Amino acid sequence: MERIYNFSAGPSMLPLPVLEQAQKELTNYKNSGMSVMELSHRSGWFKEIIEGAEQGLRNLMKIPDDYRVLFLQGGASQQFSMVPMNLLGPSKKADYVHTGSWSKKAMKEAEKFAEVNVIVSSEDGSFTYIPEVTEDMIDEEASYVHITTNNTIEGTAFRNIPDTGDVPLVADMSSNILSEEVDVSKFGLIYAGAQKNIGPAGLTVVIIRDDLIGHADANVPAMLDYKTHSDAGSLYNTPPTFAIYMAKLVFEYIESLGGLKTMEKINREKADLLYETIENSDLFTSPVKKDSRSLMNIPFVSPSAQTDAEFLEEAQERGLETLKGHRSVGGMRASIYNAMPQEGVQALVRFMDEFEHHRNK
Amino acid sequence: MERIYNFSAGPSMLPLPVLEQAQKELTNYKNSGMSVMELSHRSGWFKEIIEGAEQGLRNLMKIPDDYRVLFLQGGASQQFSMVPMNLLGPSKKADYVHTGSWSKKAMKEAEKFAEVNVIVSSEDGSFTYIPEVTEDMIDEEASYVHITTNNTIEGTAFRNIPDTGDVPLVADMSSNILSEEVDVSKFGLIYAGAQKNIGPAGLTVVIIRDDLIGHADANVPAMLDYKTHSDAGSLYNTPPTFAIYMAKLVFEYIESLGGLKTMEKINREKADLLYETIENSDLFTSPVKKDSRSLMNIPFVSPSAQTDAEFLEEAQERGLETLKGHRSVGGMRASIYNAMPQEGVQALVRFMDEFEHHRNK
Repeated sequence: MERIYNFSAGPSMLPLPVLEQAQKELTNYKNSGMSVMELSHRSGWFKEIIEGAEQGLRNLMKIPDDYRVLFLQGGASQQFSMVPMNLLGPSKKADYVHTGSWSKKAMKEAEKFAEVNVIVSSEDGSFTYIPEVTEDMIDEEASYVHITTNNTIEGTAFRNIPDTGDVPLVADMSSNILSEEVDVSKFGLIYAGAQKNIGPAGLTVVIIRDDLIGHADANVPAMLDYKTHSDAGSLYNTPPTFAIYMAKLVFEYIESLGGLKTMEKINREKADLLYETIENSDLFTSPVKKDSRSLMNIPFVSPSAQTDAEFLEEAQERGLETLKGHRSVGGMRASIYNAMPQEGVQALVRFMDEFEHHRNK
Repeated sequence: MERIYNFSAGPSMLPLPVLEQAQKELTNYKNSGMSVMELSHRSGWFKEIIEGAEQGLRNLMKIPDDYRVLFLQGGASQQFSMVPMNLLGPSKKADYVHTGSWSKKAMKEAEKFAEVNVIVSSEDGSFTYIPEVTEDMIDEEASYVHITTNNTIEGTAFRNIPDTGDVPLVADMSSNILSEEVDVSKFGLIYAGAQKNIGPAGLTVVIIRDDLIGHADANVPAMLDYKTHSDAGSLYNTPPTFAIYMAKLVFEYIESLGGLKTMEKINREKADLLYETIENSDLFTSPVKKDSRSLMNIPFVSPSAQTDAEFLEEAQERGLETLKGHRSVGGMRASIYNAMPQEGVQALVRFMDEFEHHRNK
C-alpha cells in the first residue's frame, strides 16, 4: 500500500518531504557518522538543531524578542498544571473559558492550586460554539485568563482572540498552532503539544513572555518551573532531541511554502471545501455553529450510526483513514492539519459525494 | 564519512540494525501507509507497538507480574520529584545514598517534599567508590531508600544491590539498565531515562511494584501521579510514540542477541578490555576504586590537561567521538553502552596503546 490520507486528530500526518529527509539521514546525519538520535544534546551538532528550531519558530510566528521559546515534555496535559504552578500570584485566582473536553481537563488540574473561575462557558450548547469573551467578565485580580484556541474534539475555534487587558492571556494552542497567522503579543503564554502541526509526539512547545517567568514557589519541582528551562535554553536535562530535529524540519518546510500566510490560505481552502460539501449535502450535517468552526478539526454526522459505520468502513477501503468521530460527539471527524494535502481533502469530499449519491439511487 | 564510534554519555549509540529498520519503514510502517510518527496513539497499530515494548522489557528483565511498566516523559530529572510525590508516607522521611552528581540532584528535588536523610555518602572520596549500605543504616520509618545504581559522571556502579528489608528500594538505573542481569524483585521502583540503553531521548521507563501505586496526595498533578499512567496503560495522554517504537526494536534486538545474560557477558568483555588497558598503561590511570567500577562509563586521565587535549583531538580524527570527560572529573570518559560494538572498544584501546607508544619514542 502507498501512503494513505490520515485524518487522525493527532498524532497525525507529517509532511512527506520532512519524513523523507529524516529517512535519508537517519543513520548518518550530515556526514557526522551518527544518527540525530545518537547525538549528545551537549554537542555542537545538536546545538545547531535546537537553535535552528527556535529560530524557525520565531520566524514563522514573528515571536517578539521579549518572549522565550521552550522545548519541553509532557504535552498540554503537563501544562495544565505547570501554568498555575508558575503563573498564580498571591490572589491564587485564575479565569478560565470553558469550551470543551480539554478546557475541562485544564481546569481540573488548575483547581489543585488555584481558585478557578469559569468566566464563560458553551456547555449549555454542548460546546458547539465559542462564547464571546468580553473584558468586563475578567476578574482584575486573576493571574491569567485561559482559553483553548481550537477544540480538537468539538471542532470549534476562536475566530477572534479576546482582549484581556492587563491580565495575561494563556492559550492551549495544541491543535491549531502554525495553522494561521497569529499575533503572539496578545498572549502571555502559548503552549502546544507537537503532535498535530509541529512534529512527532513527545515534544511540547511553550512561548512565554519574559515577565511571567520566575514566579513559581520554591517547592515547585525544578522540571515544572519555566525558569529552569528558560535559564538552560531547554537543555536543563536531556530534551527529546529527535522530536526537536523533526520540528525544525517542519518549521523549515512551512517557511519554504511561504510561511503562515500561505499556510492559512491553504488551510482555509481545505476547510472551505469540506464545509461546503457538508452544507450542500442532504446526508451530512455539521454540529458546529458557523461562526465558531475550526479549520483543523471538522466533525460531521449522518442521520444514523449505521450509516456512519458504513461510511467509515468504505472510506478506509479507499485510503481515507481514522475518520471516526470522538466518542463524545459521534459520527465522523476529519482532522486536516497543515500536513494534510489538498488532494486528501479533495479525495474525501469526492468520496462523500459518491457515498451520498450511491445511497440515493 | 561512515558511521563512527560515539562514546557519548547519552544520548549515545543505538544498534545499527535498529536504526536501519526504523529507516526502512520511516514513511510507511508495515504497509500501513503511515509513518510510526503519524499513527494515532489510540490506533490498533500503536497498541501493538506499546504492548510489544512492554512485553519485550518484561521478558528481558524478567519483571514479576506484580510490577507495572510505565512509559513516561521528563527523564530521570522528573522522577526525582515524582518519587517523593508518590511514595512518601505520613512520616515524610526518605533515605538517600549519596554517590555523585545525580544523587545530589535527586536529593535536592526530594527535599521539597521530604525529610531527606543521607544514610551514607562517598563524597569524602570524591565519589570514586560506592559505599557499603547495611540494613542498620536504614530508618524503619523511611518511605524508601534511594540509590543510583550507576553513576554516569563518576564512573562507579553498585556491584551488589543492598538489602533494604521492608523499606522499598528505589533506583535510578538510567545509565545501566539492560546492561546486565538484575533481580527486579529487590526493588520497589526502578526508573531510567531511555537515552543510554533503551532508545532515543524523550522516553522514561518506570518499573513499579503494585503496592507503591496510588499513594499520591490529591493535589499532585495528574501527570505526576503514577496511578494516572498505570490505570491508563501509559496512554493517559499522547505518549512519545516514536521513542516507544524505537525502544521496542531495541528490546527485540537485545533478545535476539541472547537477552541480558549475553549482554552482560559482552559488556564485561568490553569493560575488562578497557580497564586492563588502563591498568597496563604508564600514561593513563583510572580515578575509580576497583570494586566500584562501572561497566558503562569509564573515566581515565593522563597526567596533564595538555596530553588529555592531544589525545581527544587525535581520537576524534580516527572516528572515536565524544571521549571528553565531564568537567567535574576532567580527562576522558568512554561511555560504552550496550550499542557500542566490541570493535569500538578494540579501536579505542588500540589507539590508546599507539598514542602512549608514540609519546614514549
